Amino acid sequence: MTSRQANQPNPFSSSEIRPRLERLRQAMREQRLDALLVSSVPSVRYLSGFTGDSSVALVTRTGQYLLTDFRFEEEAAITAPLFRCLVRRLGMMELVEKTARRLRLRRLGFEEQVLTAAELRDLGGRLGRSRLVPTAGVVERLRMIKSPAEIAVLRRAAAAAERGLLLARRAIRPGATEAAVAAELRRCLVARCGAQDQAFETIIAEGPRGSLPHARPTDRKVRRGSLVLVDWGARVGFYHSDLTRVLALGKAPPLYRKLVKLVRQAQLAAMEIIRPGVPLADVDRAARAVIERAGYGPRFGHALGHGIGLQVHEAPRLWARAAEKAEPGMVFTVEPGIYLPGKFGIRIEDDVLVTATGMEVLSSLPHDERLAGEP
Amino acid sequence: MTSRQANQPNPFSSSEIRPRLERLRQAMREQRLDALLVSSVPSVRYLSGFTGDSSVALVTRTGQYLLTDFRFEEEAAITAPLFRCLVRRLGMMELVEKTARRLRLRRLGFEEQVLTAAELRDLGGRLGRSRLVPTAGVVERLRMIKSPAEIAVLRRAAAAAERGLLLARRAIRPGATEAAVAAELRRCLVARCGAQDQAFETIIAEGPRGSLPHARPTDRKVRRGSLVLVDWGARVGFYHSDLTRVLALGKAPPLYRKLVKLVRQAQLAAMEIIRPGVPLADVDRAARAVIERAGYGPRFGHALGHGIGLQVHEAPRLWARAAEKAEPGMVFTVEPGIYLPGKFGIRIEDDVLVTATGMEVLSSLPHDERLAGEP
Repeated sequence: MTSRQANQPNPFSSSEIRPRLERLRQAMREQRLDALLVSSVPSVRYLSGFTGDSSVALVTRTGQYLLTDFRFEEEAAITAPLFRCLVRRLGMMELVEKTARRLRLRRLGFEEQVLTAAELRDLGGRLGRSRLVPTAGVVERLRMIKSPAEIAVLRRAAAAAERGLLLARRAIRPGATEAAVAAELRRCLVARCGAQDQAFETIIAEGPRGSLPHARPTDRKVRRGSLVLVDWGARVGFYHSDLTRVLALGKAPPLYRKLVKLVRQAQLAAMEIIRPGVPLADVDRAARAVIERAGYGPRFGHALGHGIGLQVHEAPRLWARAAEKAEPGMVFTVEPGIYLPGKFGIRIEDDVLVTATGMEVLSSLPHDERLAGEP
Repeated sequence: MTSRQANQPNPFSSSEIRPRLERLRQAMREQRLDALLVSSVPSVRYLSGFTGDSSVALVTRTGQYLLTDFRFEEEAAITAPLFRCLVRRLGMMELVEKTARRLRLRRLGFEEQVLTAAELRDLGGRLGRSRLVPTAGVVERLRMIKSPAEIAVLRRAAAAAERGLLLARRAIRPGATEAAVAAELRRCLVARCGAQDQAFETIIAEGPRGSLPHARPTDRKVRRGSLVLVDWGARVGFYHSDLTRVLALGKAPPLYRKLVKLVRQAQLAAMEIIRPGVPLADVDRAARAVIERAGYGPRFGHALGHGIGLQVHEAPRLWARAAEKAEPGMVFTVEPGIYLPGKFGIRIEDDVLVTATGMEVLSSLPHDERLAGEP
């Protein structure tokens, strides 16, 4: 769809795909792989442009193949022109094995975190002379660093999400159900903001439901005086944004006002240290320390953030055990929170791009309960 | 959500969950399992009622546990009241191992088609005295046979889909893009037909795009004289419907009229033989034979149908290699098609319930290009 819009960079053009394959082959050489079997749907899309599913990519030192079935044959020819399309008749692993044999692959890498135990057993039993080599996160590591074309689409995804909330805001009124607010937000994103869809099932959580970090919208009604947590995003050209704000209908209670300031301070403490070379574990630590010092450490039980791109949750993860350092081109969320069961939950989430010298926040909505300024 | 609507059976009430656990334990005894680790999200939902994700169920001979993380702790207590909730701090497989050790489980079954190769390796390396036993389709086989409460929700999902298309039909007019039609259909499903969402990304395929069995909506415009393939469904209370019709704007070409009659004959030939005890491979054969006799066998390259329920595609699959026989309570699609690349595609899809004596079609929209009667 992006290809149809004039002046919009297309992250799946051949000039984007070729360097990705180049970088993948570099990673394959480092692991002495003759080929990598890529089963992750978003990774297949990243490497080939293919818009379907139920298909795998086989990338060798010199060629690239898309293994698919009848349903996707035409679609593969249109959307993955750099790949040779092989259509399976029976099992997928049967076709992988035949292809590996024909190409005389010796060391064939597979994605250990994606291939199922059954697929591995099936493939392992078939391959005679090829050796199966487990790999983890090979394409995911490439996907962590976004190209300018990808960053342009991610900017549009963030802007669409923000515009969508501003348009849908009037629907957040006393008597409206969480589900109705979610439906109106989705409608605004698609009909008025250029999104193909919402990025994920929007969380609209009234009052105490805000303390469920992954609450699905229900028939619960927004009331005067409510706090409403909104965690939403837009999908634009296969890329996702992911934001959170807590809105108030009427005057917010003093404890809320105190804690939303604290959460925002935690977010800013993290953002302040983001620049190339900084360990992502330190970024998590910077935010967590602010919340811990105020005595709310146990009420912030999740990671500080996660990469966004072709998936809403992808590498890197910002948490205590993160091994990665910030690199230019990374795009991730920064989303500290405090959850008080039975009372309310607070989370503030923005999307951040690591630049050559520091970072840039892709989202610009104010953070207070009226979207008016600083909390 | 269903639980809030008066007089609507709730497929996740404790009186529904208990017999499911009972049947699962029967299957476990047959495989001499002390416990089954259930990782499939819809299977966890089926067995427990849990509405979240990223969690696994561990069902032993006498107890049942939901292993989850911080984000879903409250949600688990609310939606899975028959399960004991265990919250993990670090890796999920670490918690599985600790629990298996504490419960002294010897033979622990896992879902080979769901657990990833990495999870299996992680778990296998940790478990000392427990033996890991691969299983396939244990919960999926239970899910094949729907209870009256599930059938009631599936009926509502089919009715919502049909009503949605009738409401959205006026949007299918010359100049409208495939994407705009898809958006309007989704809006009707959610806002006016009681669906929580569309069941899957609707396929709206104009003219020659109808020959791509899984075409996603694009900016291509519907024109006067177009044939438009619509493959859509509704999600109601976590259950799905899945239907297909081809509509015409203006007079349909003679070849189309001939082939849509043929496809409908193929569908009826399959439906005629559906009753308890009939092999599902024979049902596939009955439809395929009609299309083959007319010389279009190679243009019908996919399975005849698939089960619907908590997933849009679930067991059983109706194809030449199906091992199952029809059983009362099965609900599946019957969807023969003929695809002529560059010209058009035809598919007619309805949702069928196997009854004690035969079958019942849950969908009732006419099958011709004007939704007016027989083709």
